[in-house]
Amino acid sequence: MTSDIPEVVINRLPLYARALSTLAASGATVVSSQTLGEQLDVTPAQIRKDLSYFGRFGKQGRGYNVGDLLDRLRSILGLDRTWNVCVVGIGRLGHAILEYDGFVQQGFHTVVAFDASPAVAGTDIQGIRVRPMDELEGYLASEEVDIAVVAVPAEAAQVVVDRLVASGVKAILNYAPISAHVPEGVSIRQIDPVVMMQGMTYYLKELAPDAG
Amino acid sequence: MTSDIPEVVINRLPLYARALSTLAASGATVVSSQTLGEQLDVTPAQIRKDLSYFGRFGKQGRGYNVGDLLDRLRSILGLDRTWNVCVVGIGRLGHAILEYDGFVQQGFHTVVAFDASPAVAGTDIQGIRVRPMDELEGYLASEEVDIAVVAVPAEAAQVVVDRLVASGVKAILNYAPISAHVPEGVSIRQIDPVVMMQGMTYYLKELAPDAG
Repeated sequence: MTSDIPEVVINRLPLYARALSTLAASGATVVSSQTLGEQLDVTPAQIRKDLSYFGRFGKQGRGYNVGDLLDRLRSILGLDRTWNVCVVGIGRLGHAILEYDGFVQQGFHTVVAFDASPAVAGTDIQGIRVRPMDELEGYLASEEVDIAVVAVPAEAAQVVVDRLVASGVKAILNYAPISAHVPEGVSIRQIDPVVMMQGMTYYLKELAPDAG
Repeated sequence: MTSDIPEVVINRLPLYARALSTLAASGATVVSSQTLGEQLDVTPAQIRKDLSYFGRFGKQGRGYNVGDLLDRLRSILGLDRTWNVCVVGIGRLGHAILEYDGFVQQGFHTVVAFDASPAVAGTDIQGIRVRPMDELEGYLASEEVDIAVVAVPAEAAQVVVDRLVASGVKAILNYAPISAHVPEGVSIRQIDPVVMMQGMTYYLKELAPDAG
């Protein structure tokens, strides 16, 4: 049942889980696909279709049991365990990532960081040891790292991604402003605020074509 | 020709522009949809189809003129002008955003920041004045701001988004970990590294279902 499921569906499931988690925290025990859809700007039909990939949830006209659906989604997504993360590139952004407490709250434990600069390597940031880049392969060979966060400059990013992949890392979150390549079987997500802004300026330009 | 174009197409155009920009910098003058597609992990057919929304580009079998296509894409996306940005919420993340020089290089000028904390409001960061939140509406009424970056805590984010929208902001980049709502006619993009990681752990779990 796994590999046939479109990636866009998988990518929506964490949003469903987050909304359900908020609902559960507010004391709700049942939610309709209508209500859930309104919270997420997704149609109820889309939610029902997405969930149908994973079996039957809820009863016609009764809505979903919040706790049960949340548990199932957490299990499907692997959110019911912890994952080890490494961060590569400890400039301003990498530093901010090490200081961000939102990862560990969601089960993502940053266990190590790497940086090419001798001034940064060897230091501890938020209790996380920053190692020199030449220790990357050795570390990954002996320690379990599930996800790598790449925050190096654009020109270094593909080489770093290649080294991570060669060391067996199967999931990469890339903050460098390039479209990095990974082979089949490795997941990558790109975070690029400039690209996101550039997708919005198209609409701004349409709203006020003479401005600027 | 504008509103019929799917948003996913618009969102790919900045990636095409970025790849073309790199090609141009390396001295390339012509590129095939095949080569461009390989750089971006997009099929050549997809590139041709995406571009066909905007007219005819390139000649069958000859590829695209890199400079011409780049100019057209920059014009289509509104990247041939500058845009004014405000950043709301100057905690660690907002601070890192103010210090990030990648925006201004791409024509996104951060002109002002806002923060609720009296300790932060009134300071300058990277030459950008941080104003108290209660000056938000007044500032936006008199100064041109095209895009707002929201970096406030989750529980404050929807209220901030609502205030920005009420003040006429039409494009919002939201770093807060909520699915914020905006009315029709306002663009919003969500940046949430946790959600992106949670979309990848699904695949990690499939690779090693017994681990953890």
